[in-house]
Amino acid sequence: MQILSEMRRTHNCGELRRANAGQKVILKGWVAGWRNHGGIYFVDLRDRYGITQVVFDERLGENFDLISQVRNEYVLVVQGEVSDRGENINKKIPTGEIEVYALAFEILTRSEATPFPIEDEVNANEVTRLQYRYLDLRRKPLQDIMVLRHKVNQIARNYLSDNGFLEIETPYLNKSTPEGARDYLVPSRVQPGNFYALPQSPQIFKQILMVAGFDRYFQIVRCFRDEDLRQDRQPEFTQIDIELSFPDEEMIYEIVEGLLVKVWKETKGMNIPHPFPRITWTESMARFGVDNPDMRYGLELCTLNEIMAGCAFKAFASVVEAGGLVKAFSVPDPDKTLSRSFIEKELDPFVKVYGAKGLAWARTGAEGWQSSIAKFFDADTQKRINELAGANAEDSVIFFVASENPRIVNGALGNLRKKIAAKMGLVKDNDYKFVWVTEFPLFEYSEEAKRWASAHHPFTQPRPEHMDMLQSDPGKVLARAYDIVLNGNEIGGGSIRIHSSEMQQKVFRALGIGDEEAREKFGFLLDALQFGAPPHGGLAFGMDRLIMLLACTQSIRDVIAFPKTTSASCLMSNAPSRVDNAQLKELGLKLEKI
Amino acid sequence: MQILSEMRRTHNCGELRRANAGQKVILKGWVAGWRNHGGIYFVDLRDRYGITQVVFDERLGENFDLISQVRNEYVLVVQGEVSDRGENINKKIPTGEIEVYALAFEILTRSEATPFPIEDEVNANEVTRLQYRYLDLRRKPLQDIMVLRHKVNQIARNYLSDNGFLEIETPYLNKSTPEGARDYLVPSRVQPGNFYALPQSPQIFKQILMVAGFDRYFQIVRCFRDEDLRQDRQPEFTQIDIELSFPDEEMIYEIVEGLLVKVWKETKGMNIPHPFPRITWTESMARFGVDNPDMRYGLELCTLNEIMAGCAFKAFASVVEAGGLVKAFSVPDPDKTLSRSFIEKELDPFVKVYGAKGLAWARTGAEGWQSSIAKFFDADTQKRINELAGANAEDSVIFFVASENPRIVNGALGNLRKKIAAKMGLVKDNDYKFVWVTEFPLFEYSEEAKRWASAHHPFTQPRPEHMDMLQSDPGKVLARAYDIVLNGNEIGGGSIRIHSSEMQQKVFRALGIGDEEAREKFGFLLDALQFGAPPHGGLAFGMDRLIMLLACTQSIRDVIAFPKTTSASCLMSNAPSRVDNAQLKELGLKLEKI
Repeated sequence: MQILSEMRRTHNCGELRRANAGQKVILKGWVAGWRNHGGIYFVDLRDRYGITQVVFDERLGENFDLISQVRNEYVLVVQGEVSDRGENINKKIPTGEIEVYALAFEILTRSEATPFPIEDEVNANEVTRLQYRYLDLRRKPLQDIMVLRHKVNQIARNYLSDNGFLEIETPYLNKSTPEGARDYLVPSRVQPGNFYALPQSPQIFKQILMVAGFDRYFQIVRCFRDEDLRQDRQPEFTQIDIELSFPDEEMIYEIVEGLLVKVWKETKGMNIPHPFPRITWTESMARFGVDNPDMRYGLELCTLNEIMAGCAFKAFASVVEAGGLVKAFSVPDPDKTLSRSFIEKELDPFVKVYGAKGLAWARTGAEGWQSSIAKFFDADTQKRINELAGANAEDSVIFFVASENPRIVNGALGNLRKKIAAKMGLVKDNDYKFVWVTEFPLFEYSEEAKRWASAHHPFTQPRPEHMDMLQSDPGKVLARAYDIVLNGNEIGGGSIRIHSSEMQQKVFRALGIGDEEAREKFGFLLDALQFGAPPHGGLAFGMDRLIMLLACTQSIRDVIAFPKTTSASCLMSNAPSRVDNAQLKELGLKLEKI
Repeated sequence: MQILSEMRRTHNCGELRRANAGQKVILKGWVAGWRNHGGIYFVDLRDRYGITQVVFDERLGENFDLISQVRNEYVLVVQGEVSDRGENINKKIPTGEIEVYALAFEILTRSEATPFPIEDEVNANEVTRLQYRYLDLRRKPLQDIMVLRHKVNQIARNYLSDNGFLEIETPYLNKSTPEGARDYLVPSRVQPGNFYALPQSPQIFKQILMVAGFDRYFQIVRCFRDEDLRQDRQPEFTQIDIELSFPDEEMIYEIVEGLLVKVWKETKGMNIPHPFPRITWTESMARFGVDNPDMRYGLELCTLNEIMAGCAFKAFASVVEAGGLVKAFSVPDPDKTLSRSFIEKELDPFVKVYGAKGLAWARTGAEGWQSSIAKFFDADTQKRINELAGANAEDSVIFFVASENPRIVNGALGNLRKKIAAKMGLVKDNDYKFVWVTEFPLFEYSEEAKRWASAHHPFTQPRPEHMDMLQSDPGKVLARAYDIVLNGNEIGGGSIRIHSSEMQQKVFRALGIGDEEAREKFGFLLDALQFGAPPHGGLAFGMDRLIMLLACTQSIRDVIAFPKTTSASCLMSNAPSRVDNAQLKELGLKLEKI
């Protein structure tokens, strides 16, 4: 006789239906719950595919007294007969039309009591959940995300492969070229005193692959940044990396839109209209204050400099006089959700985080503005401002920020706009609005380093007509760079790259990277550009962010099987940890006394 | 008017045929060669898809005097008309039916003279080729391998996905658990004095994923080992990693065979017969002397202990008496390829590498053996040995090795068998013979460490009936472990894992890993096994080796886009390299004086 535990399951726990009634089946899975009704045990058997109710009569079967020992998360193999539940359908589960009457069973593995129940919603704190990640991952919401992530992976690979892209693996043990974020270093044992660096992205390698003639490359690849972590960052993250030769921006937009449309269609059954809208960086900053605009709602910003020039409200007039900026936006608020105290206690401090001195505001009404600044503006001017800010005359709130530094105005109002939209319920799940933001500036001025730095990276091509401003007016140089933005989140970005070594050298110089430093850091790229580099460009998606948006989750740790905390620890394995001194000695390293 | 360089290509350089004659096309590519016939230039334009001949008449076109400047590896865009070459077909290239008459062209990028020609066969030394890897990768043989690798990647992912496996990404920044090879370490900045380790394989994580209930997992994943490198090893390598719950060996064999059959069918158009043959490790050692037998030819080993016991040749008789082993195999050699001097100068030293004291041999013939040991064996005994060794009576050579240590005998003859097969031309390209080797020993005795070590890894399940020998006779314990072997190469290996924490602790103890050490290193796995771990098992393929065998190349560096040397350097980027002291200081590290 064959031993039950060695027999294969005939079905998984999610697939039996009324049509299977009368069949003898073998199921394997975890006990998700059990009830004893006077010697009849009802056990919910769970696997990744679903839950099936199994009925054990302890008077039957040789070892059926054992059933009273079974507890949650025990792993069982059950042989039984499928029975039609008739009218008595359990509508909560897809297998609810049937139950299985156990004829034989074995306990495959026992389980301790789990520190939290394996249920869709749990109250356990995140530290416990991360420590017992294997239990947290048994919960259906996380399982569903991992399945979703797998699907997106597969869809992306097949789509890109079908479009002539080759997946080529680039190395993880690389040369350290610190630029932007910190590298994770890997000491070399064979060459003590030397170090590899883990890639922040495969940028240079994918460009080298274009020089090598591969024409179309992609890779779904891990990247690493040793940054001080915020809630939404992880030290290692996954990128869908795409590069092609002989491209133009339109070609890249088409390819990327095709991919995203397919992902949304196949994972959510949604038809995303395309081509996606596009706006230039300059327009995005003007209308939305940010370079990652959320297009699901209006609340667009307007500029009030003309009206405020020489106005009676000196705070605004003086900003205009000093060459600053006064902007505003409005939101209808018939229900008076935005109370004075909410604005003063929540929103005023919020804009100050972005450097604004304060938030001015006005409520419209039949009698004109209710506002501490109402007195500075006559009825006509209030009306003109209402119109410019798109406020209705009855029940809108207008928010104003003024500063001599335009970045402060845009940062404060752009982010306030997002906060207000959330507060007012303008943001809905399963509403997806994509937009291309194009023509980014090539450089950003780093106040810290007191020099110009690459906005994207130093391999981005300036717009050809701006080449002559590289030295004279670097802040005005626009780049052939673009971001794909979804619901206010940058999910990908890229550029047409520099393919001439002369242009690359000019950009390095504009960045204050001398020829010697350029050669030391990027010599192999400069060399490669000498030997017939094709025009090329591409884009990289942040996979983790993409999955977060698809899964409608707020935590990046929900979309990564084994995430790290903000102190870059794995609470399950306790990485990082001490190592033997012998290991360090082999690497030629000593710990500094701390 | 549109600028030619900004227009899209209409075709690639590999696709034009007679049917396109008369069409106006735009091609972009590299100059692979050019000839000037009195002002008419014939240029071979190359991209990853092929080569097209373009004809430039320097008297035509505005800028056609420029054509005389064009040299190899310049990147051009050409607009022209496709012309039928009629009878004058160039059979060397698929586009040989046509040529393109240039109407307009531009030089997109110039190129320096390359350090070696971009041709299928090059003489350049490997150092130069690795330094200019982007040029080496332009050569068709390497491009073809990268395309093949991409295809295998895609086939594997789609096959596994279609069979219900989920690709789940496991972390690269892990806890160091030195066991077997050395870990590559990554110092933590946030927690100075602590280190991550790069994964040698995702072994523990894939087991944890089974505990988490994912049922079927795979990943195509980079792994890292800081070993002293041999020619066929790389510090980072790629694995196809597979794990499933509730498996038995047969289930794993079916899945893996399905994958390999599909890969061979879709990349080489070959139908590989399956199920693959299987032999136990014990049988493989007996018949082939190795655990990775090449099944493309016979030359099987036979054991001669019975005949040699008490024979006149004392060297053999004494080995038998001491409990050793005498084995032999034979090969037909009608052409006398295996001359006395070849055997003495090449083969005798070869077996000594494996620890044998020497190689005895005999040539059969109508008159009996020609051999220095012929005199010790009468005609009947010679005949019996011929039969046992499968030698014919006319023109075979029989090789003998004897030693008190059976591992030496098997190692020497097993490897000699492979060498002889190569020498005798028994090994043919595109002949693929798979075999499963099963029931490996659980432990190997480490002479170095003077203790038992895991043959595979410490998570492998012993055969249940051998559990009670774990302490008493560990060398006899067989494992539920298996390798898939192709043409004498192990391309993958795996096992049914331990899913009970009690069994895991017993195996750790047998390995001399104390409870405290086990908890320190593998605590999170032992914990996970407490909470209802399903029976599980799997297998991992070495992707690089698989591609080498498919591509019929001898060098692992041919199948990796950016390989490292045996001193683990990248000659293109010069990794590893020095880093700033500031970077080390942040990590709390100092270099030892060397």
